[in-house]
Amino acid sequence: MKVFDLITKKKNKKTLTKEEIDFFISGVMANEIKDYEASAFLMATAINGMTIQETYDLTMAMANSGDVVDFEGVKGPIIDKHSTGGVSDTTTLVIMPIIASLGVKFAKMSGSSLGFTGGTADKLQVFTGYNLNLTQQEFKNTINTVGGSVITQTKNLAPADKILYDLRNKTASVESMPLIAASIMSKKLASNADVIVLDVKFGKGAFMKTQKQATVLAKTMVEIGKKAGKKVSAILTDMNDPLGSGIGNNLEVKNAINVLKGKRNNLATVSKKLCEQILLLSNTYDLKTAKKAINDSITSGNALLKLQEIIRSQGGDDQIITRTELMQKPKFTQFVVAKKNGFVNSFKTKELGYIVSGLKESKTSKIIKSDHAVGIKLFVKRNTKVKTGDKLAEIQCNSEEKLLNAQKQMENVISIGKNKKTKGKLIQAIIK
Amino acid sequence: MKVFDLITKKKNKKTLTKEEIDFFISGVMANEIKDYEASAFLMATAINGMTIQETYDLTMAMANSGDVVDFEGVKGPIIDKHSTGGVSDTTTLVIMPIIASLGVKFAKMSGSSLGFTGGTADKLQVFTGYNLNLTQQEFKNTINTVGGSVITQTKNLAPADKILYDLRNKTASVESMPLIAASIMSKKLASNADVIVLDVKFGKGAFMKTQKQATVLAKTMVEIGKKAGKKVSAILTDMNDPLGSGIGNNLEVKNAINVLKGKRNNLATVSKKLCEQILLLSNTYDLKTAKKAINDSITSGNALLKLQEIIRSQGGDDQIITRTELMQKPKFTQFVVAKKNGFVNSFKTKELGYIVSGLKESKTSKIIKSDHAVGIKLFVKRNTKVKTGDKLAEIQCNSEEKLLNAQKQMENVISIGKNKKTKGKLIQAIIK
Repeated sequence: MKVFDLITKKKNKKTLTKEEIDFFISGVMANEIKDYEASAFLMATAINGMTIQETYDLTMAMANSGDVVDFEGVKGPIIDKHSTGGVSDTTTLVIMPIIASLGVKFAKMSGSSLGFTGGTADKLQVFTGYNLNLTQQEFKNTINTVGGSVITQTKNLAPADKILYDLRNKTASVESMPLIAASIMSKKLASNADVIVLDVKFGKGAFMKTQKQATVLAKTMVEIGKKAGKKVSAILTDMNDPLGSGIGNNLEVKNAINVLKGKRNNLATVSKKLCEQILLLSNTYDLKTAKKAINDSITSGNALLKLQEIIRSQGGDDQIITRTELMQKPKFTQFVVAKKNGFVNSFKTKELGYIVSGLKESKTSKIIKSDHAVGIKLFVKRNTKVKTGDKLAEIQCNSEEKLLNAQKQMENVISIGKNKKTKGKLIQAIIK
Repeated sequence: MKVFDLITKKKNKKTLTKEEIDFFISGVMANEIKDYEASAFLMATAINGMTIQETYDLTMAMANSGDVVDFEGVKGPIIDKHSTGGVSDTTTLVIMPIIASLGVKFAKMSGSSLGFTGGTADKLQVFTGYNLNLTQQEFKNTINTVGGSVITQTKNLAPADKILYDLRNKTASVESMPLIAASIMSKKLASNADVIVLDVKFGKGAFMKTQKQATVLAKTMVEIGKKAGKKVSAILTDMNDPLGSGIGNNLEVKNAINVLKGKRNNLATVSKKLCEQILLLSNTYDLKTAKKAINDSITSGNALLKLQEIIRSQGGDDQIITRTELMQKPKFTQFVVAKKNGFVNSFKTKELGYIVSGLKESKTSKIIKSDHAVGIKLFVKRNTKVKTGDKLAEIQCNSEEKLLNAQKQMENVISIGKNKKTKGKLIQAIIK
């Protein structure tokens, strides 16, 4: 077998066999396939696509290119949840304690933030001392004892995906439905939970711009997961607005805590829907009992207590859960105000994410503690009525220079028009 | 400007500007664009294509990436001719002496053979001592004094094309109309003749399998040449059969000499048509006077004398022109015979080219003298009637092992059927 022939087939829109895809991935791993060969293959794939079977074969080959988590000794079902990346999306911090308080086990390996989206691993570091680097045995023990754990991805999780993603990122083949699906699902399958619930975002703050694209991606991933013997479902959610009322680690953690304290908002809606899907797939609930269990977990305070337990079990300081005023404060704050009367028409949501990234001092995945305090607090949502001078947002940061910079960037991020605009449902579909 | 954005545009079927294409080629030349970036760009181009304007811009950028031949001091018009590669195609050795004998100057820089096709430079080495490595001044002097010269391509002729061709050859993006057109024309424009006549082949022994593909390629190249201010025309010729009655350096040179001695066959037909195009574009002939001048050049013996003069002027031994029996003989010969009665239906022409390559000892472009004697002589053409046992071909070679190998390979190369098959015209079109 020669990689040249595989590239040729994909260039000519032919379908690759499992053996050919395995050959490609093992060649990449063994460094026998050169990067210029792999980049040509990836470009041909990005343009000409892959069938579901090819995408599945690619996913499996990448999932098996490194370690596959072994949950032996943990009584299942074990739940994993993945969001395709949004702005102010803290659902994991809401979902994990709710379902763990109901006796359903949650296990997630989290990557760092990607460009404009924040990563769960980053947000958990708001709880000083929280140890993301458990051994596999510690990970299993924590899941067994408290019911939920988030750790960082092990280095050897789907390493073929890492190699290919880096190359795609340099050669403009990131945007590709089968390659995105295989990249996400290879890591999920190597993480090896029994139930995988996906939150596929679309709109201005998401990687998928349209609902149609998001639907294709969700269907592809659900089908791959099922072929691999997992229970999977996906919800499609609108990411034209930031999900919560603040962007930045402290603001987002506070949002999550507030939902666990009973606050009803978009973050609560999406988190509860994901919990429902998890409970349905874990087979001991129907829709009615699931809804009731989720609400009871919150109103009883059990979910909040479970969050404290989870944070403490990995060495994190849980004081801020009950006393959010103890969270670090930003040195500088500045309001962004409306320049005219009207209605909030839209957010440049992705740009908001990038602005918050720019407020941070951290240059790599190594978090600088003071960065938790920076962010943008939002006082409005789409269709909020505003008058000239009304507060739209507050920039929170630790350097005057970055503040000035962010002020300039914020100028055209929230657009105000004369009239309200029609707004789609937050959750557009459930794909099983 | 970033190469990433150029790859993205091409991936999304957008059109690149001249500035972007210049940036790409200068980045490749400066080694600032990595090979994995270039291979992704080339794959996106091979799949999504280029407009004529983009193809022209690419051609010019590649043509100007190295030296452009300076014909100062040679009174024009200067003629160049290019064939897109066929089997047993020796037209250059026929055309050059004919038009030089008529006072029209011929200047060609020849590459070596490519896979199944033989190169003019290789065939000229049949004339022992013929020096292909003239300086530019010697090249010009020879053209001025004898009217025609073939030398090997200077190393610095369109070097960007060489880099990109090597990469395409490794990453399956050779087959691409705009990239093929730009590759050929960049070298022709850097060779800088005033008149360029193209022989675009199609069929089983050509790079272009169909007449339709060959037509698109011919039109593209003619348009690029005209945009660059050259006089250009192309003929489309059928390469389902080998053009001459033998494949291999001695056999092909002998064929060319025989045409100059008056033999009428397919090689003569194509060569004369190309001469006609050259004379028409050189502006001193109309079709009638051109045809007459060509025939007179042959019947008078002037063309043959001119070939002797050209060969001698570059130090070649011209004895074999009048005494072809002096050519080196192969050590072993073996007939290939018909296994049934019927008509010759088709040749696997490309395979014939590869079989002859395999008969040679030379592993690189460095020719081993005894290799001139190896080849395959053909006794039949399409639709020749044959009986079981009739000679179809003769394998000529210098090693028993290679002979056995070639015998096996020849088994299914000439197919015989019950009936004749319709056969298209040898020259299908002239594209101006």
